[in-house]
Amino acid sequence: MDARTYIAEHRDEFVAALKEWLSIPSVSTSPDHHADVRDSARWLADHLARTGFPTVETWETGGLPAVFAEWPAADPQAPTVLVYGHHDVQPVDPLDAWHTDPFVPVEDGDRLIGRGASDDKGQVLFHTLGVRAGLAASGADAPPVTLKLLVEGEEESGSPHFADLLRKNRARLDCDVVVISDTTMWAADTPSMCVGMRGMTDCDISLYGPEVDLHSGSFGGAVPNPLHAMADLISGLHDADGRVTVPGFYDDVVEIGEEERGLIARLPFDEAEWLRTAASTATAGEAGYSTLERIWVRPTAEVNGMWGGHTGAGRKTIVPRSAHAKVSFRLVPGQEPLRVQDGVRAYVAAHTPPGLRAEVEFSGPGVRACASDLRSDAVRAARSAMSAAFGTEVLYTREGGSGPEADLAEILGAPLVFVAVGLDDDRIHAPNEKVEIPLLLKGAESVAYLWDELGKNTAG
Amino acid sequence: MDARTYIAEHRDEFVAALKEWLSIPSVSTSPDHHADVRDSARWLADHLARTGFPTVETWETGGLPAVFAEWPAADPQAPTVLVYGHHDVQPVDPLDAWHTDPFVPVEDGDRLIGRGASDDKGQVLFHTLGVRAGLAASGADAPPVTLKLLVEGEEESGSPHFADLLRKNRARLDCDVVVISDTTMWAADTPSMCVGMRGMTDCDISLYGPEVDLHSGSFGGAVPNPLHAMADLISGLHDADGRVTVPGFYDDVVEIGEEERGLIARLPFDEAEWLRTAASTATAGEAGYSTLERIWVRPTAEVNGMWGGHTGAGRKTIVPRSAHAKVSFRLVPGQEPLRVQDGVRAYVAAHTPPGLRAEVEFSGPGVRACASDLRSDAVRAARSAMSAAFGTEVLYTREGGSGPEADLAEILGAPLVFVAVGLDDDRIHAPNEKVEIPLLLKGAESVAYLWDELGKNTAG
Repeated sequence: MDARTYIAEHRDEFVAALKEWLSIPSVSTSPDHHADVRDSARWLADHLARTGFPTVETWETGGLPAVFAEWPAADPQAPTVLVYGHHDVQPVDPLDAWHTDPFVPVEDGDRLIGRGASDDKGQVLFHTLGVRAGLAASGADAPPVTLKLLVEGEEESGSPHFADLLRKNRARLDCDVVVISDTTMWAADTPSMCVGMRGMTDCDISLYGPEVDLHSGSFGGAVPNPLHAMADLISGLHDADGRVTVPGFYDDVVEIGEEERGLIARLPFDEAEWLRTAASTATAGEAGYSTLERIWVRPTAEVNGMWGGHTGAGRKTIVPRSAHAKVSFRLVPGQEPLRVQDGVRAYVAAHTPPGLRAEVEFSGPGVRACASDLRSDAVRAARSAMSAAFGTEVLYTREGGSGPEADLAEILGAPLVFVAVGLDDDRIHAPNEKVEIPLLLKGAESVAYLWDELGKNTAG
Repeated sequence: MDARTYIAEHRDEFVAALKEWLSIPSVSTSPDHHADVRDSARWLADHLARTGFPTVETWETGGLPAVFAEWPAADPQAPTVLVYGHHDVQPVDPLDAWHTDPFVPVEDGDRLIGRGASDDKGQVLFHTLGVRAGLAASGADAPPVTLKLLVEGEEESGSPHFADLLRKNRARLDCDVVVISDTTMWAADTPSMCVGMRGMTDCDISLYGPEVDLHSGSFGGAVPNPLHAMADLISGLHDADGRVTVPGFYDDVVEIGEEERGLIARLPFDEAEWLRTAASTATAGEAGYSTLERIWVRPTAEVNGMWGGHTGAGRKTIVPRSAHAKVSFRLVPGQEPLRVQDGVRAYVAAHTPPGLRAEVEFSGPGVRACASDLRSDAVRAARSAMSAAFGTEVLYTREGGSGPEADLAEILGAPLVFVAVGLDDDRIHAPNEKVEIPLLLKGAESVAYLWDELGKNTAG
C-alpha cells in the first residue's frame, strides 16, 4: 500500500484523535490552564507510544512540560531528523466572537474548527500519520531516518525555558536536520516552504502618575495624565515613514538583498485578496517596502494591548493613576533581542515626562530571527518531497511570526527546514481558528516521502 | 438655644442618619445599581418628611428620580430659596484600593469614610440639620425663607434629564436664589465660597480596524493598528503648549480678566501642598497659566480611560480589531457644549487614517460653565453667614468640576450661590472618599444663619 492510500484510509481515525487532543484547553499563558497543558502533554505522550515510538518521555522544564519521542532507523548510518512543534495554544478571548466552543472541535466539511487546530496540534499530529504511512509503504518496522520529536508546551508564552531544555538535552537531541511544522503555505493550491522567520521581543510598559485616581474637574489640566503620556509615547514609536524610532533599532538589521527581493516580487501576491484575509480595508507600514517585505523581512513595533483609567460602562471623570501598554517587536536577522530591549528602555526613559514614573518589563530574553540556507540538501529534499505530495511545484516564502527556531539552529548546530501546511486565513491567534483537513493529510504524505528521501540521500 | 448649640447636641443623631443613607449604593452610572438609586430617593424623602418639610415628593424623570421638598415661610413676602444637591454617587472601582467597604460607612475620629460622604450626601444632609437648628434658635414653626430642596439622582451621570425636569416644574421651583451645596472650600481652616464652575461634555471615541484580531506576526506592520491610530489621535489632542487642538475650541472662551487673575493670585496657594493633595509629583498644563487658573478658568481635554487589544495577564501577539478612549472636556464661560462636540467630531474625522473607521458618541448634550455675580446681595449674605459660622473671613474660589448648575441659573432665572464645605482631599471620585464631620456641622450652621439673613434682607 502506498503512503497516499494509507493516509486516505486512516483519515477518520486521524481526525478523531486530533479532535480528542483539541478538546484539552492547553493555554500556556493562563495559569488557570496550566493543568490542561500537562494533560495535553500526557495525551500526546500516550498517542506517540501508540503510534509506535519506542521511546516517549515527558520532559519537565522550569515551567510547562515538553514531550520527546524517538524512533531509531534500522540503519545506524541513517541520518537523524528532529521534528519541532508545540502542544500549547493561544488564549481564546474574545470568547463571544467564536461561533463554536473553542475547545469542542467541530468538523465543517473539510475544515476542523477549534483552538490549536492549525497552531500547532494539527501540524504536530500529521507526523504520527506520516511515519505510519511511510512504514505501510516500505513494509519496514522502523523509519528510514532516526526520527526524533520535540513538542514543547510554552511556545505561545515565548518559550521561556526552551533554550535551557535544548542545552540540557543537547546529546539526546543530536540531529542532522531540524524539521519545523509550525508555519503556513502560500495558499491551499500553491504549496510553499517557509525559509525564514522573524524573531521577537515583547514588553509591558507602564506609566504611573498620581497615587490615586483624581477627580478630573478638581485636578484635570494641571497634573500630568498618564494616558496622555502613554499616547505620546506610543505615537512617537513610529516616525512619519512608519519606521520604528527606538534608538539603534535598525543598526544591526541585515537588509534584504536584491535577489531575495526579486524572489518575493515573483510570488503571485494579490493585495486585494490579502486584505480580505486580513479582514482589513487598507495596507499601512514602513515606507519603501511592499506588503510581503513588511511582514517577512522588516522589523516592526506593534502595540498588542493598551489600557488605563475607567474602561467599563458609563462615565468616570478622572485623571487615572496609571497607563499600560503591551508592545511586541518583530525582529529580523542581525538584530539582537537584548540590544533591542536596551533601546526600548532608553526610548521609554526619554519619553517619560516629569511627574510620571515608568516601568518596562520584558517577558523574557526574546527570540532571534532565523533563516534556512536555500542551497542546502535538506531544503532541496523537503521541496522535492512536498512537490511529490502536492503534485505541483513548491515555492519559497517567509513567515512574519516568531518561534524558538533560532535557538534550535544555534544550540543544536543543525540546519532548519520548514515543512508545514497551515494557511494565513486559519485565524491562528483569533476566534474561530480552523485547519483544512486535506492539507494536514498532504503534510503527512510530505514527511513520509521526506524521510525516504533523506534516508536515501545520506545512505547514498 | 442658639443654632450652634443645637447642632452640637444633635451631632451623633445627624451622623447616624448620614451613615444609614451612605449604606445605599446609589451609583447612577451603573444599571446594576439603579434600584439602589431609587432606594436612596426613598430614604431621603422619608428623612425630609421626618425633618418637618410639609411637602415631600419623589419626581420621576426619564431616568432616575429626584426628590423635591418645600417648607413655606410664615411670611408670604419672605424670599424663596432653592437648595440643589444630588443623592447619586460615583462608581467605586478600583474596589481593591479601598481600605474599607465603600458602602459600610466608618467613623475615624472626626472623619466619616464612605462613597458619597462628601459628594454629595453629606452636603445635602447638613441642610436638614441647618433648618432644624434655625427653628430651635428662633423658636418659630417655619423657616424665615420659603425653603425648597431639589436633590437629583443623575448628577454623576451628567444629569441627562435634569434640564427637562426643571422646565417641566418651572413654577414649583420658582425662587429668588439658588443655593448649591456640592463643591469645596479652600481648606478646613480657610473657609471660602465658590463663585464659578466649569462645564463639561464627554464622549467615547472608538477606532475600528480589522474585523477580527490578527496575528501580529502574520499581519503586523502591514495593516493599520487601531491602537497606534488612537495613540496618534490622543497625542495630537494637545499641542506643545498644552493647548487643546480641537478646531474652534477656544473661539468663544471668555478670557479671564486682570481683576480676577489678581484675585486668584492673592489666594494662599502652596503648590507643594497642592501636589501632595493631588498625590502627584509635578504640575503640567496649558502654558501661560498658573495651576489655579488651569483648573478653574481654562478649558481642558482629559482622557479618563483608554483601552484596546489584550489587556489581561500574559502575552497575546495581535493587531487588535479596535481601540477605545473616554475623553471629557471641561468648559469655561462662553463655550457652547454642542459647538465643542462638533469640533471633536471634526478632529476625530481628520485623525482617522485610511483603513480605520471612527465612532464618536457623546454621553449627552453636555453642561455649560456657570459663575456667580460677586456684587449680588445673595453672594454677600452667604459670605456673611459662613463668616459667622466659621468665625473667620470667607474667601472666593472657583471649582474645576462641573454640574447642572448652569441649567438652574438659566432655566429658573435666579442667581447662584455656592455654600458648601467639601475639601479637595475628600477623594470624591476616588477610593476612600471621606468627609470632615465638623465641616458638615459648620455647613448646617451657615445655612441656619443664611436663611435668617435672607429673611431679614428682603423683609427689610
